[in-house]
Amino acid sequence: MLSAEIIAIGSELLTPEKTDTNGLWLTEKLNEFGIEVMLKTIVGDDEPRLLEVIKDALKRSDVVITTGGLGPTEDDITRQVSAKALGRELIYNEGLEAELRRRFQMMGREMPEINKRQAWVIEGAEVIANPNGSAPGIYFGSNECILVNLPGPPREMKPMFEQAVLPRLSERAGEIIVKRRILRVSGMGESAVDAVASPIYKTYENVRTAILFNKTEVEIHLYARYATEADADAVLAELSERLSSALGVAVFTTTGETMEEVVGRMLRERGETLSLAESCTGGLVSRRITEVPGSSEYFSEGAVTYSNEAKVRTLDVPEETLAAYGAVSAETAEAMAKGIRARAGTDHAVSITGIAGPGGGTEEKPVGTVFIGYAGPHGVRSIRLVLPGDRYLIRWRTSQAALDHLRRQMLKQASRDKL
Amino acid sequence: MLSAEIIAIGSELLTPEKTDTNGLWLTEKLNEFGIEVMLKTIVGDDEPRLLEVIKDALKRSDVVITTGGLGPTEDDITRQVSAKALGRELIYNEGLEAELRRRFQMMGREMPEINKRQAWVIEGAEVIANPNGSAPGIYFGSNECILVNLPGPPREMKPMFEQAVLPRLSERAGEIIVKRRILRVSGMGESAVDAVASPIYKTYENVRTAILFNKTEVEIHLYARYATEADADAVLAELSERLSSALGVAVFTTTGETMEEVVGRMLRERGETLSLAESCTGGLVSRRITEVPGSSEYFSEGAVTYSNEAKVRTLDVPEETLAAYGAVSAETAEAMAKGIRARAGTDHAVSITGIAGPGGGTEEKPVGTVFIGYAGPHGVRSIRLVLPGDRYLIRWRTSQAALDHLRRQMLKQASRDKL
Repeated sequence: MLSAEIIAIGSELLTPEKTDTNGLWLTEKLNEFGIEVMLKTIVGDDEPRLLEVIKDALKRSDVVITTGGLGPTEDDITRQVSAKALGRELIYNEGLEAELRRRFQMMGREMPEINKRQAWVIEGAEVIANPNGSAPGIYFGSNECILVNLPGPPREMKPMFEQAVLPRLSERAGEIIVKRRILRVSGMGESAVDAVASPIYKTYENVRTAILFNKTEVEIHLYARYATEADADAVLAELSERLSSALGVAVFTTTGETMEEVVGRMLRERGETLSLAESCTGGLVSRRITEVPGSSEYFSEGAVTYSNEAKVRTLDVPEETLAAYGAVSAETAEAMAKGIRARAGTDHAVSITGIAGPGGGTEEKPVGTVFIGYAGPHGVRSIRLVLPGDRYLIRWRTSQAALDHLRRQMLKQASRDKL
Repeated sequence: MLSAEIIAIGSELLTPEKTDTNGLWLTEKLNEFGIEVMLKTIVGDDEPRLLEVIKDALKRSDVVITTGGLGPTEDDITRQVSAKALGRELIYNEGLEAELRRRFQMMGREMPEINKRQAWVIEGAEVIANPNGSAPGIYFGSNECILVNLPGPPREMKPMFEQAVLPRLSERAGEIIVKRRILRVSGMGESAVDAVASPIYKTYENVRTAILFNKTEVEIHLYARYATEADADAVLAELSERLSSALGVAVFTTTGETMEEVVGRMLRERGETLSLAESCTGGLVSRRITEVPGSSEYFSEGAVTYSNEAKVRTLDVPEETLAAYGAVSAETAEAMAKGIRARAGTDHAVSITGIAGPGGGTEEKPVGTVFIGYAGPHGVRSIRLVLPGDRYLIRWRTSQAALDHLRRQMLKQASRDKL
């Protein structure tokens, strides 16, 4: 089994604000091929320390991956320090310079002279193209070691690793296959999920299970280690089937989809449409729905009606309803859903009104009080929730609850239609 | 100035799910006393690697802090490996054993025999009491180096560090104050910013500068180290003033605000209001504007008009405009801005229409083509951009460009009003 080290480079990663997230993602990818991460280092733009770290890593581990320090400025020293650690020269690559110039021209800009620094390549190494940025990566492989230099921004690093590094590493790594599957659960806490799930997953010796809580949902990660992909897949299919029948409707995906993808897929399969009316989430639910490519097939319109006037003007919420029950109420939520459904002429409509804080809470309706309205072919209804957290978390949790409410309404209708 | 290294110990920290959060907290505490963190390492319960890491750290840095690996099980090797790295013996501390036994008795339990492991102490080191757990910490200080072993759980580690480690370190560190300031720049690339900024910041010897690029903007972080807070503040004020006059209007904050906070502050100061009409950003701009507490003061309504019908219905975009120029055009963007401004009755209105991809691009209007419309007291206009990246990045960059366009329109109006 190959061992790996990950080195995150950049003085900003040694401040109290920034943390290295690339290391977690790289670990997951490497683990899938049975490559174990033995050490992670975070080091600044500091030549003697970086040189020592890379040299030590090359001595200890089979695969060394660095992220960061490939930009065009003087701070960016990964290229030259890596070459020094390997005892190799840097060679100027004219073709790469031409490539960089072309890239800038396409964006209608002239390449700044300092970007020529990015055309230096370690002798004997391969260049890894960067589709999302100017910094090229480097892959150096010899019989003794593998050294990979990737840029720091995740959006650049990830596709480069998947397209150019993984295929080369998997060839070296050989015979263990680790496959992963993610189940996502909405509307249950971490310990409640574990209480149901652990008696099941503990009987699987070759599957490692991790239960994680992110801001809006509980995730169950399953890693199966087998000699063949078919074996791993079969065990994962069986285990995730057992877990999802034990956990019931709270499991919204067994294949790692996001909530917006699940809801989008259901709408597309049913050939139905959606509109949204948001107050306290301020457009977050619309943004999540439209994050999915092709969402224009089922999403036609969203209204962000932040003021009362906008609720009356655009959603036909009766002024008397606002006056009698307030903007944050079941009655207003239901009127908002009815209003946007009538305006947009969709099958389903979801509305949100609530108090995201930090101000605006009362004894009767504290910060975190949210009403989610629904209007559909079988009528209008609403639910009330009180969600914990700060403004950011309350908004996120509200958006998740709204999408989950829509999902459950569609499931109910489907099971009713079957009868 | 003292330099520090942080070593997080534990194989669980090398899985894809767990990340070391102690390092960020420790960095913040150390920085406040002018102690700079030069390196962070994450290493498993793996003797040869841990020994090498601690030895290297002691050679390179003045202060070495480890977290984790102080429990009673065989996996917990921090004590013996630290002793070996220092070339010191472990000495059994009977008093500490008695202390541990008392602790267990107080909880009504007998101390398990394996917990005797926690009574071994490095020769010449001080024991740090742990009020929230069984694992004691260790403080070893000599003329050459300081090595501190703390337990991994944050609620045990943090009070031990604050009560026992910080006072000892601050005595050694002396009198340095470090203050930070962040400038943010929109509409310029990282290298273009550095080309203008570096001749200025390089003349400040006691200020460390880091230039960072996040998905939508460039950040300039300035860290000033001085003997007094007043000195640090004065230098930061001078330097950020010089940088922002060199970079011009592209600098949207010198105090670390987000773009949505800047735009919100400007609207509030002017007593003016905003409405939004979004197509390809699907609610992201509304969501950003409403992320700021109190945004209901200046933001009344947003329309997410994803379909052509919604653009006609809710924004009064003429069908002829859509037919003649298409939904992604300057004409449609301007009609959208005019439409939402008329509907919501606001001072300013911003609209967005574009192609976020992955589908929908043409030769004339490739993926990333975006029109931003503006309607305000002085009329209606629009700009065309072609933004790089995937769907996620195009949407984020578009949202930033739209907010920045609004900011620049307000600045223009302010300077026009002055004349």
